[in-house]
Amino acid sequence: MTNDEFYMDLALKNAQAMKGQTDPNPLVGSVIVNDNRIVGIGTHLKAGEPHAEIHALRMAGENAKGGTIYVTLEPCSHYGRTGPCAVAIVEAGIKKVIIATLDPNPIVAGNGVKILQDAGIEVVTGLLEKESQKMNEVFNKYIVTKKPFITLKTGITLDGKVATHTSNSKWITSEEARQDVHQLRNENMAILVGVNTVLKDDPALTTRIPNGRNPIRIIMDSKLKIPLESQVITETQAETIIFTCKDYDKEKRKALEARNITVLETSGTLHTDPVDVVTQIGEKGISSLLIEGGGNINASFLKNKLIDKVVLYFAPKLIGGKEAPTFFEGAGIDLMKDAIDLEHTDINRIGPDFKFVGYPRYPNKYDN
Amino acid sequence: MTNDEFYMDLALKNAQAMKGQTDPNPLVGSVIVNDNRIVGIGTHLKAGEPHAEIHALRMAGENAKGGTIYVTLEPCSHYGRTGPCAVAIVEAGIKKVIIATLDPNPIVAGNGVKILQDAGIEVVTGLLEKESQKMNEVFNKYIVTKKPFITLKTGITLDGKVATHTSNSKWITSEEARQDVHQLRNENMAILVGVNTVLKDDPALTTRIPNGRNPIRIIMDSKLKIPLESQVITETQAETIIFTCKDYDKEKRKALEARNITVLETSGTLHTDPVDVVTQIGEKGISSLLIEGGGNINASFLKNKLIDKVVLYFAPKLIGGKEAPTFFEGAGIDLMKDAIDLEHTDINRIGPDFKFVGYPRYPNKYDN
Repeated sequence: MTNDEFYMDLALKNAQAMKGQTDPNPLVGSVIVNDNRIVGIGTHLKAGEPHAEIHALRMAGENAKGGTIYVTLEPCSHYGRTGPCAVAIVEAGIKKVIIATLDPNPIVAGNGVKILQDAGIEVVTGLLEKESQKMNEVFNKYIVTKKPFITLKTGITLDGKVATHTSNSKWITSEEARQDVHQLRNENMAILVGVNTVLKDDPALTTRIPNGRNPIRIIMDSKLKIPLESQVITETQAETIIFTCKDYDKEKRKALEARNITVLETSGTLHTDPVDVVTQIGEKGISSLLIEGGGNINASFLKNKLIDKVVLYFAPKLIGGKEAPTFFEGAGIDLMKDAIDLEHTDINRIGPDFKFVGYPRYPNKYDN
Repeated sequence: MTNDEFYMDLALKNAQAMKGQTDPNPLVGSVIVNDNRIVGIGTHLKAGEPHAEIHALRMAGENAKGGTIYVTLEPCSHYGRTGPCAVAIVEAGIKKVIIATLDPNPIVAGNGVKILQDAGIEVVTGLLEKESQKMNEVFNKYIVTKKPFITLKTGITLDGKVATHTSNSKWITSEEARQDVHQLRNENMAILVGVNTVLKDDPALTTRIPNGRNPIRIIMDSKLKIPLESQVITETQAETIIFTCKDYDKEKRKALEARNITVLETSGTLHTDPVDVVTQIGEKGISSLLIEGGGNINASFLKNKLIDKVVLYFAPKLIGGKEAPTFFEGAGIDLMKDAIDLEHTDINRIGPDFKFVGYPRYPNKYDN
C-alpha cells in the first residue's frame, strides 16, 4: 500500500463507518496531509450537516495551507449550507487534491474538479475508485437513474438447489447466514417476493435484528391471489405494496385497500411487469430493493437486466434431484457464450456456509 | 502456532513435497529437536528406501540422544530393509515421540507406539492429525478397504447448471480451472465417465500437462452403446475399461476386445452397478478414482455413498433454465434434514473461478 493509498483508505474507513446515518446523502470521508503528517480528518455525518472536507479543513486549521486533501468523492460545486466544498478547499490554500471518484451524477460530474483546477490546484482522480464506488453503490445508481439499486439474494445448496424435489427448504443455510440476511433486509428500503413465496412460506419479511429497519414489502401478484390472512397483510409493522397486472380481481383490491395495503397496476397483461415495478418504486423514492423471490421471479428480473448485485449463501450440502428447483429458472440462456458474467466477485465464510457477492455484467446479446 | 505445531508442520511440508514419488507408500516426514534446536529432518523419498525417521536419525547422529522426534505417521513396527523405525528410535536414545496420526491400517495401528512405550519413551499422538490424514487420504482409504478413494469433480455455473437447456457447455469454467482439472487427472489412477458423456462430448480423457500421467479410463456403459470411433477407443495412449450390466451386446464386446478394450460385467440388470464397479477396480489395484460424470452418474455414486471428496469449480456465471441440467440429478433427497453434508470445506480462487473442496459426511438415514 502506497502512502497515498494509506490516506485514501483511512478516508474510506471513516466514510464507511457512517453507513446508514447519511441518507439520502452518500458516504464521504476526507484526510488532509501536510509535510507527511495527517493534520485533519473528516467524514460526512448526517444530511444537512457539513461535508467531509469541511470537517477536515476545520480540524486542520492553518495546517491546511500547502497541504494535500484526500477525499473519497469529488468535492461539491453547489451552494448548500456551507458553500461549495471546492471553494472552501481553494480558500484554505490546499495545494493538491486526490479524489477517489467523480460525482456519479453526470450533470454535476467534473464541476468540482473544474473549480479546483481553475484555481491552479493539482487534481488527481481515480485512487481507490472501485472501493469508493462500491461504498455508495446504491446512491450512485439512484442519483443517476432514479431507479433502485437491486440486490438478488438466495440461499442454495452446492448443487444449486433452493429446495428438495418435495419443496422442502427448511433450512438450507445456517443460523449465521440467515442472521446476515436480516442485515441485508435492514440495509434495503424495500424487499420483493412473488405471491408464490407468500402462498408457500407465509413469511413476515421483517428484520429480526435489534433496532432493525423493516423494509417496505413488495409482492408481485398478477391475479391478487394473496390470502388476506397472510403475515405480510396482518403483520402491520411494515408497509406492503402489491403489484398486479392489468387484469385482476377488483373486489380483492378493495378488501386489501381496506387493510391499508397499496395495490398498484403494471402494464403487464398476463404477468406483473418487472420493469414497470422497478420504475414505479423508484418514483416512490425507494433507492434500494432486495429480491428474495423464487426461481421464476429471479429469472424475470435477470432476463430484464434489472439485477445490480447478486448475493448467494452456499450451504455445504447436496440434495440432488432433476426436479428440485434452482434459483434461476424460466427458459434460461441458450449458449454458454451468452451467460450473464459476474464481476468484482468475492466469497467469504459465514458460519459453515459461504457468502458469494458479484455484480452482473450483461452481455449486449442478452436481450431476450 | 506452538513450537510443537511448528516442528510437525515442517515435517508435514517435507512429506507433502514428495507427492507422487512415494507410491505405493504414504507420504511421511520427520523432525528431531534437541535442546530447542532442530538436529535432524527426514522424509520418505521412494518406496524401498529408508523411512522418514531413519533419514532424520542419521542426520541427527549423536544429537538424537535425549531428543524429541516429530513424525507425521506412526513409526513402523515391521521388519523391512532398515528394520522397524520404532526400534531405531529406541536405539537412538530418543526421549519423546510426537505423532500426527496412527497407522490407518487397523492390523498394525498402535504396534509402533507399543514398542516405544514398552521402552519407556513418552508418546503423544494427534498433533495436526487432520492435516496428516488429508495428505495421505488416498493411501489411508485404500490400505484399509482395498477400494479406491473417489473424487467427484464438476464445473458449474453459480446457479448450479452444468450446461444450458440446449446442452451447450463449452465452456463453463476458465482456462485456469480446466488446467487444474488436468492436475486432478494426473493425480488419479483412473477417471470415470458415463457413456452419455462419451456420446455427447467424445472426450479423450487424457492429461494435457507436461510429463502428466494418463489415468485409466473407465466408462459405465450398460448396453455397450459406445461408438468404436470414440476417442477413448481410438486414442490408445491410455488404457480403457468398460463396465456393463448383465444384459449387453455380445458382438459389440468382441469388437471392443479386438481393439484392446477391457469389458467387465457388473451385477446390475438394467444399469451398471456402481458399487460393483468400485469393488472391481479396487481389486485391480486402482487406489484413486476421479469421477467426471454427468448428473445421473454423479447421483448414482452419491446415493450409494461412494464419493469421498467433492471438487467443484464454480464459474461466476448465470445461465438459468428450469430444464438446464445440474450436476446431481436423479430423484434427489426428499427432505433438507437428510441432505448430504460436506465437511472440511475449503474454497479458493482459481483464475476468475472458485474451486470448492469438501468431504461428504453421509447421514445414517440416507440409505435410499
